[in-house]
Amino acid sequence: MNIALLPGDGIGPEVIAQAVKVVKAVGKKFGHTINFEEAPVGAAAIDLTGNPYPDATHDVCLRADAVLFGAIGDPKYDNDPKAKVRPEQGLLEMRRKLGLFANVRPTFTFPSLIHKSPLKLERVEGVDFVFFRELTGGIYFGEPRGRNEQGTKAFDTNVYTKEEITRLARMGFEAAQKRRKLLTCVDKANVLATSRLWRETVQELAPEYPDVKVEYEFVDAVAMRLIQWPKAYDVLITENLFGDILTDEASVISGSMGLMPSASVGTENKLFEPIHGSYPQAAGKDIANPLATVLSAAMMFEYAFDMKAEAQAISDVVNKSLAEGIVTEDIAEGSKAYKTSEVGDWLA
Amino acid sequence: MNIALLPGDGIGPEVIAQAVKVVKAVGKKFGHTINFEEAPVGAAAIDLTGNPYPDATHDVCLRADAVLFGAIGDPKYDNDPKAKVRPEQGLLEMRRKLGLFANVRPTFTFPSLIHKSPLKLERVEGVDFVFFRELTGGIYFGEPRGRNEQGTKAFDTNVYTKEEITRLARMGFEAAQKRRKLLTCVDKANVLATSRLWRETVQELAPEYPDVKVEYEFVDAVAMRLIQWPKAYDVLITENLFGDILTDEASVISGSMGLMPSASVGTENKLFEPIHGSYPQAAGKDIANPLATVLSAAMMFEYAFDMKAEAQAISDVVNKSLAEGIVTEDIAEGSKAYKTSEVGDWLA
Ligand SMILES: CC(C)[C@H](C(=O)O)[C@@H](O)C(=O)O
Ligand SMILES: CC(C)[C@H](C(=O)O)[C@@H](O)C(=O)O
Repeated sequence: MNIALLPGDGIGPEVIAQAVKVVKAVGKKFGHTINFEEAPVGAAAIDLTGNPYPDATHDVCLRADAVLFGAIGDPKYDNDPKAKVRPEQGLLEMRRKLGLFANVRPTFTFPSLIHKSPLKLERVEGVDFVFFRELTGGIYFGEPRGRNEQGTKAFDTNVYTKEEITRLARMGFEAAQKRRKLLTCVDKANVLATSRLWRETVQELAPEYPDVKVEYEFVDAVAMRLIQWPKAYDVLITENLFGDILTDEASVISGSMGLMPSASVGTENKLFEPIHGSYPQAAGKDIANPLATVLSAAMMFEYAFDMKAEAQAISDVVNKSLAEGIVTEDIAEGSKAYKTSEVGDWLA
Repeated sequence: MNIALLPGDGIGPEVIAQAVKVVKAVGKKFGHTINFEEAPVGAAAIDLTGNPYPDATHDVCLRADAVLFGAIGDPKYDNDPKAKVRPEQGLLEMRRKLGLFANVRPTFTFPSLIHKSPLKLERVEGVDFVFFRELTGGIYFGEPRGRNEQGTKAFDTNVYTKEEITRLARMGFEAAQKRRKLLTCVDKANVLATSRLWRETVQELAPEYPDVKVEYEFVDAVAMRLIQWPKAYDVLITENLFGDILTDEASVISGSMGLMPSASVGTENKLFEPIHGSYPQAAGKDIANPLATVLSAAMMFEYAFDMKAEAQAISDVVNKSLAEGIVTEDIAEGSKAYKTSEVGDWLA
């Protein structure tokens, strides 16, 4: 297996290093030959090449069977609104060029961390849903976008084709069939033309999945119900921008934000990354929690290589580290806090 | 004072009726002559005239000093995606024609209801922030919007002018000056051209309000932090669509959704309405909670007529009804539940 490593910015390199230790250990245990090829992305790539997603990095991704990605973003670019090149552009370019049209973001709870949830226990206990966010279309990429000549008016375009909606929706339907068989289509069909096409397309597909119950909810209602009754959801599908907002909202309800993995998949390529950001304040301190990245590697074994036992071995050892308290300071709570690298060594 | 009454759909007529009782009582106590003129809107107006916001209703609003609005929406339209006229169109038309460019939505807690919050007590105790949502621009109204000829591609346009952003932002700055002096501009400036114009415009205005601290946050981060640290916010300003999602999210965190009022204001006109919807399942049963509408009437006295004592009298009696348990079944909890009309009578 050839794995591209894109550590990116901030704590990215440190957490990716721990995932590499774990993947190597799994390779050894299960007898797989695993090759890694590393490449820069984000602010790290701008510093080196002026481009946040250099062609050479793209080639490394194309050659690989899967990409393990850390995080992107550096405050030196955030605080300069006139910056011509920004790390985030690299992220969007990477998604577009690799055709990663579906961002798969599960939300589930870890019994040992559930008390960290901002929600009351009875609301969040047993929460288990997954978002399929469309990732290469919508207002993120639609044209025209920009300003009028005088600079006094700005515009963006939200665009979706039936084809883009269909391929994302089918992934949601198929996931629902393997889960609790409930699909929620999240849109704003009472206002947006794009949302009406989403709803219509999902309605047309539904008869092909007779075992899946389909519900249609407005994005504002879902923003409420995710907090009120998160257990009501199973699989949710939605457009790029709504997905950006709702998956971030979802990521904090379980209390396990630092542990949530994600996958971004397309027809040809697959990328795995933690949900958390580049956390620049912690960079280089060997204190960042590597578990979300390690669990992203587990998702990689399952979804990119169809190796369920390997994925399970990783989940098991993560659960063990939680049970035995071999964890970083963000979740140590009073008991001894381990370094990022120590947690990685222990897991491996 | 001339007040236009737009009860609308579902529980709208019942809750508006209670607000009218209270407004009449305040008029009597403080010696004001108050005239009411009622007009249909929403599904109720479609049924009568075929139009969810008839010209005659618009004239009633123009003649009035303030509008008291109930709720809009009827399931018979929701379940028909091919319906040519929809109640929500009336709402959008009303906002646009009355020039109600700012939707003001406070979130605060009632000590007697805070235990109903889905959030843990320590997170939500003392929460007190207010959203200024832009209401007549953005992707709700931008052109072009629609489908290509084959119907396989849909598009919407998000548009903002500096002028639209400026008038909304100034309201936010002025509100912050009277409060805790913190303004959060919520955007997605790392992706959207419109958001970059928002951020730039707010940055240009900031020096005129040197006593206000301005923060810029991405919409996805706010969706998280509203749940994690809602106390961190004071005044938030944002575009129409982000405001739709975030104010609904905000409305459930205090546990007092049924009590939250709102105002939609423009240069010429002012409208006051509860945050909750038309709740069709409860319509006609005399069980709906009228307090949000009654508190919207309090906002009307304060913001439309600059009558603080009258507004305070209403808030005081609402607090008294909560303390003495003269409340509807949604918040009665074990103790006797009063009817909508009984609560209205008691308050009056
Ligand atoms: C950094 C930003 C462009 C990105 C997005 O909006 O997609 C991020 O918020 C995410 O969700 O991965
Ligand atoms: C009904 C709908 C068009 C409306 C909106 O999106 O503005 C509603 O959600 C609101 O927030 O008042």
